[in-house]
Amino acid sequence: MTRQRIGLYPGTFDPVTKGHYDIIKRAGKLVDKLVVGVAVNAGKGPLFSMEERVEMVREEIGPLMPGATEFEVKPFSNLLMHFAMDIGAVMIIRGLRAVSDFEYEFQMVGMNARLNSDIETVFLMASDNHQFIASRLVKEIAMLDGDINPFVSPRVAERLRARVAVVKAQGAQG
Amino acid sequence: MTRQRIGLYPGTFDPVTKGHYDIIKRAGKLVDKLVVGVAVNAGKGPLFSMEERVEMVREEIGPLMPGATEFEVKPFSNLLMHFAMDIGAVMIIRGLRAVSDFEYEFQMVGMNARLNSDIETVFLMASDNHQFIASRLVKEIAMLDGDINPFVSPRVAERLRARVAVVKAQGAQG
Amino acid sequence: MTRQRIGLYPGTFDPVTKGHYDIIKRAGKLVDKLVVGVAVNAGKGPLFSMEERVEMVREEIGPLMPGATEFEVKPFSNLLMHFAMDIGAVMIIRGLRAVSDFEYEFQMVGMNARLNSDIETVFLMASDNHQFIASRLVKEIAMLDGDINPFVSPRVAERLRARVAVVKAQGAQG
Amino acid sequence: MTRQRIGLYPGTFDPVTKGHYDIIKRAGKLVDKLVVGVAVNAGKGPLFSMEERVEMVREEIGPLMPGATEFEVKPFSNLLMHFAMDIGAVMIIRGLRAVSDFEYEFQMVGMNARLNSDIETVFLMASDNHQFIASRLVKEIAMLDGDINPFVSPRVAERLRARVAVVKAQGAQG
Amino acid sequence: MTRQRIGLYPGTFDPVTKGHYDIIKRAGKLVDKLVVGVAVNAGKGPLFSMEERVEMVREEIGPLMPGATEFEVKPFSNLLMHFAMDIGAVMIIRGLRAVSDFEYEFQMVGMNARLNSDIETVFLMASDNHQFIASRLVKEIAMLDGDINPFVSPRVAERLRARVAVVKAQGAQG
Amino acid sequence: MTRQRIGLYPGTFDPVTKGHYDIIKRAGKLVDKLVVGVAVNAGKGPLFSMEERVEMVREEIGPLMPGATEFEVKPFSNLLMHFAMDIGAVMIIRGLRAVSDFEYEFQMVGMNARLNSDIETVFLMASDNHQFIASRLVKEIAMLDGDINPFVSPRVAERLRARVAVVKAQGAQG
Repeated sequence: MTRQRIGLYPGTFDPVTKGHYDIIKRAGKLVDKLVVGVAVNAGKGPLFSMEERVEMVREEIGPLMPGATEFEVKPFSNLLMHFAMDIGAVMIIRGLRAVSDFEYEFQMVGMNARLNSDIETVFLMASDNHQFIASRLVKEIAMLDGDINPFVSPRVAERLRARVAVVKAQGAQG
Repeated sequence: MTRQRIGLYPGTFDPVTKGHYDIIKRAGKLVDKLVVGVAVNAGKGPLFSMEERVEMVREEIGPLMPGATEFEVKPFSNLLMHFAMDIGAVMIIRGLRAVSDFEYEFQMVGMNARLNSDIETVFLMASDNHQFIASRLVKEIAMLDGDINPFVSPRVAERLRARVAVVKAQGAQG
Repeated sequence: MTRQRIGLYPGTFDPVTKGHYDIIKRAGKLVDKLVVGVAVNAGKGPLFSMEERVEMVREEIGPLMPGATEFEVKPFSNLLMHFAMDIGAVMIIRGLRAVSDFEYEFQMVGMNARLNSDIETVFLMASDNHQFIASRLVKEIAMLDGDINPFVSPRVAERLRARVAVVKAQGAQG
Repeated sequence: MTRQRIGLYPGTFDPVTKGHYDIIKRAGKLVDKLVVGVAVNAGKGPLFSMEERVEMVREEIGPLMPGATEFEVKPFSNLLMHFAMDIGAVMIIRGLRAVSDFEYEFQMVGMNARLNSDIETVFLMASDNHQFIASRLVKEIAMLDGDINPFVSPRVAERLRARVAVVKAQGAQG
Repeated sequence: MTRQRIGLYPGTFDPVTKGHYDIIKRAGKLVDKLVVGVAVNAGKGPLFSMEERVEMVREEIGPLMPGATEFEVKPFSNLLMHFAMDIGAVMIIRGLRAVSDFEYEFQMVGMNARLNSDIETVFLMASDNHQFIASRLVKEIAMLDGDINPFVSPRVAERLRARVAVVKAQGAQG
Repeated sequence: MTRQRIGLYPGTFDPVTKGHYDIIKRAGKLVDKLVVGVAVNAGKGPLFSMEERVEMVREEIGPLMPGATEFEVKPFSNLLMHFAMDIGAVMIIRGLRAVSDFEYEFQMVGMNARLNSDIETVFLMASDNHQFIASRLVKEIAMLDGDINPFVSPRVAERLRARVAVVKAQGAQG
């Protein structure tokens, strides 16, 4: 008999990109249930509300659902390690794109191991054609009317263009 | 019902260090069965024979055996990805210590994904007190009569000192 | 017969440093016409207005003018790749100073190649005696009454000291 | 006869961590007198006032006092190199934790050498069990009610929890 | 009237990969004539002779020939900078794949600038789907009977498999 | 009363470069006596014998002698940390040029701290105009008849050219 393994893939997902989607799909192979944790993250001032970000992730992973792995999307506002314990995760899954990601994650793993050394953090390297996709840059490109279709799904692209139009209209009025 | 997951932790283990042991223990939490693959790796000219390296790893993981996870030590001489397929692994587990590790691994993941994209490579960051331990440096210290006890188990330390004595005696004769 | 090649060297130039000047001079050797693009970059809150930054760059490159290469300084507020297309550039030229520059630029190149793969981004390594010069640090030193002459031209140094005096006077009043 | 050597260890210390304490202790072995310089650093918006940060550092290094090395804690608001000259330092001591630290410090050393090449900047690598401790992350963990005892002394932990409670109460009112 | 610009793309090309081909194609857009310089590089012990490596590069760039840019493949055994001067190059073009490439190249640029500061070295970032391809790894995969088709052209793959068969037969006899 | 401080600057010095000389001069300011330790380092196959390398370093630091700091050049063949203890060093001084240096040194510091935590390793960043100088590259340039005057002193340059002529004559005969 084998144990049921729950994994946690946390992020801000403002908005969810093709790079995130790739990691979610691959992380799903490592566990029996994958919880995608959407950080409320008020400090950073996300473009989309927590509800919108959760909804967008849910829409993206919809087509993944029929497989052997169970997927769930949940917001969280507490310490990552506390949230991982709450949901019974045995591992936290993170994507690595670059050396600077590596360093930041190395720090986080060191601190997290002090908080709870039973939950492992494992890393997946971003796929080559997704490694340069960062939500921050996608938003910048959208604000400057660039083409965002290579970086996000059609559904997310539409939402992002709509949101940017609103932000610009507000800026013009302000 | 959940699937049985097999993981592969490959290396040269010339010799196995406390850093390797730490990764093996942690990797064991991620899967139902962990195969530690000892690369024959003739090109690099290992200090210990393949049989010795396999034996040392077996001795080290002996105390881990009674847990829920099954451990197995196996030599291999073919392509890593082929060996992973042979043993039915769903993931390859690697330790990351430094930026240069990160870069090399990133290249390997990119090439391996082209060979078989079904098997994921996941990374664990070396624990802070093990991250500077490299088999190569441990051997250098042993050759210069330095203290190797902080880096390897007593059993491995004894073997390493004995081997170094033989190598030095041969050098003096040659 | 050879084609006329236009290159684009974009930046914020807040203010232009000796490091920028060095890249401009060297980039001029690669193309028949070099456009120095001054990003309006309202988000970052530059110390100098767009007009001032354009003017400072123009004054600096004045002495370069008599050579075979044509130099032009132009502000832009749209997406870098769109601006490059507007001016007919065949290449975008960037300076690289450090590993973190490398990573950021790598991301940008990846995203830009998706937007227009016909325009190449090429990199020049900063000269050894200019590689540590960052506009941000020069401004910090000026704010703390340090000597900025090693980092910017006399003309820019004078403007920077004057601006810092104004900012400090405003701070004292506020 | 030997010269008396004064060293300067500068930082923001918002708050002082076990990582800082480790560097202070080790830096004390390099010089006859170590000045711990607390940067006023208004720009970054520290959580603790300058007086509090100076006091916390003084409390931490209290137990170090009886040794051969003299320790002093001093606030400063001018350019680091000017402050080093004011106190007669022959060297500035910095901790290095990661590649990104390395790069930032490399830039600073390059600029500082232009300001005064007589004062050397020397680096100590963070001890393995302290290298992931960053004041910024400790504050984030405290804000999310995580356990900060592994990262700061009991005295500092108490102050930090008290301050965080105040900040949260203000946030709730605002 | 514009100047004719000659660029030099140097390498060992043992063997030429899809990654090299991508850089050659892109570098061709930057100059009027591109010389691909094949380093004799006896020290490293290449798998293919200099004549074979030159021939393989020539075969690969054959299809590129009809464009506006002239391509030429030339072996060289002297100092890179001397060869660049011999052929009248105004720029040396290099590919950048990773941070370790960046560092090595940074050193080379620094030394080369001392030898001849008139010839600029410019860098192109490897395309995302080619950045992990290294000739050394391709040879390792071939030696272990892995699939090399994703990394080199069919023509080069055939030559590499043939060469590897010969090397193995010799090893079995030796 | 202050303690006499002894520092150790170890290296292979095959041959000593302007970069080494710069670090020696600057390290001399940190201690009362600086021992330059020349590693016998038989494994790497140095171009110059241990005696020649010691002699070259002695000739270089000759002009530094009259200062307040005492300089001494000593060969060593045992473990670095043992040699440091033998000479009563309180600190080991190393130059840092690049991220890859940083990583290697970080590992060494971690291992050395396990062997003797009383002796600190301190780092000096290479000066900007020396950071790209590596003995290995200088030897390569000399072997290819390049100009080595920017990288080593006239005395060392003469020795290096003479040695390279001998090596080439031997190669031609062999």
